Amino acid sequence: MKVLIVGANGQIGKHLAALLKESQGYSPIAMVRSEEQAEEFGKSGVETRLANLEGTVTELAQTASGCDAIVFTAGSGGQTGADKTLLIDLDGAVKMVEAAEKAGVVRFVMVSALQAHNRENWNEHIKPYYVAKHYADKMLINSSLHYTIIRPGGLLNEPGTGRVSAAENLDRGSIAREDVAKTILAVLDNENSIRQSFDLISGDTEIAKAVQNL
Amino acid sequence: MKVLIVGANGQIGKHLAALLKESQGYSPIAMVRSEEQAEEFGKSGVETRLANLEGTVTELAQTASGCDAIVFTAGSGGQTGADKTLLIDLDGAVKMVEAAEKAGVVRFVMVSALQAHNRENWNEHIKPYYVAKHYADKMLINSSLHYTIIRPGGLLNEPGTGRVSAAENLDRGSIAREDVAKTILAVLDNENSIRQSFDLISGDTEIAKAVQNL
Repeated sequence: MKVLIVGANGQIGKHLAALLKESQGYSPIAMVRSEEQAEEFGKSGVETRLANLEGTVTELAQTASGCDAIVFTAGSGGQTGADKTLLIDLDGAVKMVEAAEKAGVVRFVMVSALQAHNRENWNEHIKPYYVAKHYADKMLINSSLHYTIIRPGGLLNEPGTGRVSAAENLDRGSIAREDVAKTILAVLDNENSIRQSFDLISGDTEIAKAVQNL
Repeated sequence: MKVLIVGANGQIGKHLAALLKESQGYSPIAMVRSEEQAEEFGKSGVETRLANLEGTVTELAQTASGCDAIVFTAGSGGQTGADKTLLIDLDGAVKMVEAAEKAGVVRFVMVSALQAHNRENWNEHIKPYYVAKHYADKMLINSSLHYTIIRPGGLLNEPGTGRVSAAENLDRGSIAREDVAKTILAVLDNENSIRQSFDLISGDTEIAKAVQNL
């Protein structure tokens, strides 16, 4: 399964690229914005494609062409303003969904945010970000794709535990980025996750089992 | 027909309130954010309801209760940042759509922006605003409401001519806010406009006729 990682240069993206590389039956393709990033992935033997989420749907469809799945884990990041939140986290994500449809890549895994589907639980501090994630998820759900939406809690850089809690609605919590990447792999491994959306925080259940139980 | 005007204190909203007030069969209800604005409308005999687009869907549904139509002509304005664009122009609009569904108000007229449905024609300078309008429109189209989406060109404060050009796709142009308000009234007057979306600029066709010809 050729998996295009959108946001490959982010921390979840890097974990995922490494995981897919060492997993039988998977080949990661890192979508990156610069030659410099491409070189970095090239060193570790990961195939790359140059593209930008501010490009057109046609360009993004070319980038996705020939892949079997797309994982969207890109984000404009905390340093940029809400204008980039609109252009990347919302419109960039939806352009990627449209590109997937255009390229015939039906499997799409979205990394969203805990409780993005429930306005009343949006963190006041980063509400505009939640608005963007909310509508990107809605548009994906309304698409023709075989989607899975993973909504992780606060992201940590510490090593993963391999154990999570996954459910439609969870209280606030956090999770290691490494465990989010492992959950993405488990989702790709399990067709049971198609057309499912779930909150994800660290917990007691082994990741493959948590995805199986969705 | 009781028409709730969301964004009544804006310039199009004020034109529309006055037009509805003098039109047989229509009663404007101005949704305003402050007692001060309510007093202003009260002076001209326009009914008001206090509410805020940053409130909950439940609150907005109470505000819409008993109305026969909703006109959304609110905007966060050019002075605020893109965070308010996300909260008002996108999420505020969609909350109003959900409130209409909840309150059983099926007729909904959205004031959008010229070519909001075509990414390739978005003005680079205000692209984040177009993203917000684009997805608000999409969510309305995906709703159960009897919608009409009006996408006016550059808004002018000069008096209207009463003549417009209205079509699925138009080249850039401008239009007097007064003529946008008159077009909203013509749309409310004509069920032919239900589930239609169109660009609108000043032109040669009498407004009622332009709406009839959609």
